[in-house]
Amino acid sequence: MITGKNHIGNRLSAKGKKTYKTFNPKLNLENEPLFYEASREEIEEAVDLASEAFKAYRKVSGKQKAEFLNTIADEILALDDVLIETYISETGLPNGRAKGERGRTIGQLRAFADLVAEGSWVDATIDTADPDRTPIPKQDIRKMLIPLGPVVVFGASNFPLAYSTAGGDTAAALAAGCPVIVKSHPMHAGTGELVASAIQRAIQKTGMPGGVFSNLNSAGIEVGVQLVQHEKIKAVGFTGSIRGGRALFDLAAKRPEPIPVFAEMGSINPVILLPKATKSKGTELAKTYANSITLGTGQFCTNPGLILGIKGRDLDSFITTLSQEIIKIEPSCMLHPNIVGNYEQNKTAALQQNGLDVTAEYQGDLAVNYARQTVTKVEGQTFLKNTTLHQEVFGPFSMVVQCDNVQQLEEIISNLDGQLTGTLLSEGDEASAYNSLIETLKNRVGRIIFNGVPTGVEVCPSMLHGGPYPASTDSRFTAVGIHSIKRWVRPFSYQSWPNNLLPDELKNENPLDISRLVNGKQTLESW
Amino acid sequence: MITGKNHIGNRLSAKGKKTYKTFNPKLNLENEPLFYEASREEIEEAVDLASEAFKAYRKVSGKQKAEFLNTIADEILALDDVLIETYISETGLPNGRAKGERGRTIGQLRAFADLVAEGSWVDATIDTADPDRTPIPKQDIRKMLIPLGPVVVFGASNFPLAYSTAGGDTAAALAAGCPVIVKSHPMHAGTGELVASAIQRAIQKTGMPGGVFSNLNSAGIEVGVQLVQHEKIKAVGFTGSIRGGRALFDLAAKRPEPIPVFAEMGSINPVILLPKATKSKGTELAKTYANSITLGTGQFCTNPGLILGIKGRDLDSFITTLSQEIIKIEPSCMLHPNIVGNYEQNKTAALQQNGLDVTAEYQGDLAVNYARQTVTKVEGQTFLKNTTLHQEVFGPFSMVVQCDNVQQLEEIISNLDGQLTGTLLSEGDEASAYNSLIETLKNRVGRIIFNGVPTGVEVCPSMLHGGPYPASTDSRFTAVGIHSIKRWVRPFSYQSWPNNLLPDELKNENPLDISRLVNGKQTLESW
Repeated sequence: MITGKNHIGNRLSAKGKKTYKTFNPKLNLENEPLFYEASREEIEEAVDLASEAFKAYRKVSGKQKAEFLNTIADEILALDDVLIETYISETGLPNGRAKGERGRTIGQLRAFADLVAEGSWVDATIDTADPDRTPIPKQDIRKMLIPLGPVVVFGASNFPLAYSTAGGDTAAALAAGCPVIVKSHPMHAGTGELVASAIQRAIQKTGMPGGVFSNLNSAGIEVGVQLVQHEKIKAVGFTGSIRGGRALFDLAAKRPEPIPVFAEMGSINPVILLPKATKSKGTELAKTYANSITLGTGQFCTNPGLILGIKGRDLDSFITTLSQEIIKIEPSCMLHPNIVGNYEQNKTAALQQNGLDVTAEYQGDLAVNYARQTVTKVEGQTFLKNTTLHQEVFGPFSMVVQCDNVQQLEEIISNLDGQLTGTLLSEGDEASAYNSLIETLKNRVGRIIFNGVPTGVEVCPSMLHGGPYPASTDSRFTAVGIHSIKRWVRPFSYQSWPNNLLPDELKNENPLDISRLVNGKQTLESW
Repeated sequence: MITGKNHIGNRLSAKGKKTYKTFNPKLNLENEPLFYEASREEIEEAVDLASEAFKAYRKVSGKQKAEFLNTIADEILALDDVLIETYISETGLPNGRAKGERGRTIGQLRAFADLVAEGSWVDATIDTADPDRTPIPKQDIRKMLIPLGPVVVFGASNFPLAYSTAGGDTAAALAAGCPVIVKSHPMHAGTGELVASAIQRAIQKTGMPGGVFSNLNSAGIEVGVQLVQHEKIKAVGFTGSIRGGRALFDLAAKRPEPIPVFAEMGSINPVILLPKATKSKGTELAKTYANSITLGTGQFCTNPGLILGIKGRDLDSFITTLSQEIIKIEPSCMLHPNIVGNYEQNKTAALQQNGLDVTAEYQGDLAVNYARQTVTKVEGQTFLKNTTLHQEVFGPFSMVVQCDNVQQLEEIISNLDGQLTGTLLSEGDEASAYNSLIETLKNRVGRIIFNGVPTGVEVCPSMLHGGPYPASTDSRFTAVGIHSIKRWVRPFSYQSWPNNLLPDELKNENPLDISRLVNGKQTLESW
């Protein structure tokens, strides 16, 4: 069922000379079959098809797009065990995670389907004419969101379904009316191809233009570079490392016509342990965080990599419990030997810094490609001075910073790079006394959590997954939840346009029955 | 009343060594007094003050910000004749335009005051907890828009009030909760200083932190470069040339932490003359366009610089009438000798291209710094092949393109750079037959106008002033109208946050009585 070929619009193609295979980290061996990297010619073909498809797809109604998205979801479910088994063989992740992530992927597709079927998301805004206004008559002006054009989505290594081929970026872009070209992640190219085939079947079943979706294989950087530089590509979605995301951002910014890059990148997700919480529930919190740090072998972008507390006996006791608890947890497999290699390398780089002490590291025997969870501690002053310690160690790793006092803790927060999340652990109304600290934290992150863990990103309208750079390249947009559709659209105004030539969203009669801002008032009415 | 000094927060400062004067183009002589360019030290001081002020200003309530904005408007009005006379002496523009632009500036400030006093603009989105959900409980998550931080606004040469010191960008940023540092435009530094003093009085009267606004003089590029590269600056607004806007965009993109630049730049604003309209009302349209091309000496970013029709007797007749009408119009003064110089230079560069013929050029005597309005014509094929002809000639200049047929016209549109506006001139239901052409036009512009002129940008919620690059550097935002506030904010999520510690916008009780999206339903209700 997996051919190793590229999906260029609605056909399979394998013209490239470079090939590669995916890897089963649990079995420590390569998977079949061979994947064919997309050639320059195939990339050009996919972009031309997307550009051509945009002419028709941008006019497809919300209801038809909803049918398309729901059919993609159905077709993914129909892949059944083949998809789950391929996912597991390419990631080493357990069956439960595979099914959970499939559920999330399906849920996202259906949420976007609901959004565009209902239709109010286009932010229709109408100001009617006033021919009697002095000194000059007022024109009729109407505005709505329209799609940007063909976009490129880079699959994420750590979410082979929910942030890859038909993941959040793709679902949002297709919902917005943008054709999508996926640069498939080489670590799960088989999973990607299966999902691509599901999308192609949905295209055929719902009569969408073939070029609305392509899936290109690539194990190097050339395919991505060519795509991002192509003049017909109008935006880019990416989830991955700071280095990778920044490279794409730079390429896009240097184009004759710069385009937006929505890169969701690294984060160490600071957690602040307030003194009373440390004292009264340190043990409980240590157990909770031992689990959060090792969840999914620490391969989540919201993994808590930094825990900040005030030096003293209570924090010592928290560190001791966290260290005891974390080594009780059974180690697990990482996604790929390269990920294990990076984990070991980044961990070693951190441990070479003066003043960083290991308080726990799993010491039992490890299967190949498994990760050794590690907890470290460091003094506040040392952390403040050495920005190498601020770098993410992607994996089951965390650092506890022992601050001299709250002022130092706040100074550390204000000197951190931008982060996806910040967490406050508080006892009773303790937090009320830390207003300035909370404001400082808010200024560095995209989401703050009270007495919880940062892992687990709920897919809902109120979710902001992103944050100040380098958590993301554009803090004004979320990568998770229905509002992520706003990344792929631009507002567009019609002035004095005849009613019969306006899109349905803006017609007097309000035929789609959507909520609109008419002369300053939000309403469902026609007139 | 004008000191020539910089406003650094709430004090005047003149530490720089470089000085310059503004120029009265009508009298062809320099104005008094001398302006002192901001020094590196003064820039640093202004940024530090803005950064410090942000800590308090980001928490100021919508009602207080509204009072601040309304007081700025009052103080600008209180400057009365001094402001109007300074404006005229620095621009050569007539009294009516000065007062009209002041009215627009006041109107914008009050519109943003109304917006933030009401408060629903923060897009509050609430999803309440569901502890019984399986397999994992749902957390309470709440999202709203928060300000980015200190921003820099570059004053525009052609709108000394409405797009400069307290213009649209500044009003929107202050409304959003961002401190503003204005890089004053050197051509109207006196007007800028007067408005800056009005803002400072408003700051004192309403008790805002002094550093919330600074006004820095500069006749070169160093001040702007230092500001855009400063790590404490979080966004940039600019209105001006493609070269200037792109230079700032490139600087901002290369920073260790890239920041958004909202540059509204050049545009030639294509106008499409459909055949029936050309035949039946060509004469009337020619008169209308002679006025639109010369309005404000052509110094509007929406000036119609390109008119496209189908070759033949009707278009010939339109060109003849347009040419006859435009030379009847009394020439007027441009803003500055440099602007006149650029106009002559860009016009000459265009006229040196093969196949471009002048059909009208004002031939009477001209006062110094006045512009000679010019109409030219060119064959479709010639225009298509020579992109030099696609460049903007800022001033009272327009080019009529004689296309072989509709296919060629559509090809020309699809090959244009991004534009602020596109206009369709149609007779009866003629436009219905040009669906493909209209779609192609939509894909290249930010606003389309039916049977009108592109000049005159209404300030209202439905206005989109911007467009695909290079009309603007970010087509996803408007530079005009209340929705332009979205440029200066980012969404922010609170997870499981205690009700008493939430901002008022997100509290259960809805104390601000704003419209919010609660569990998927837009409502004013509390619970």
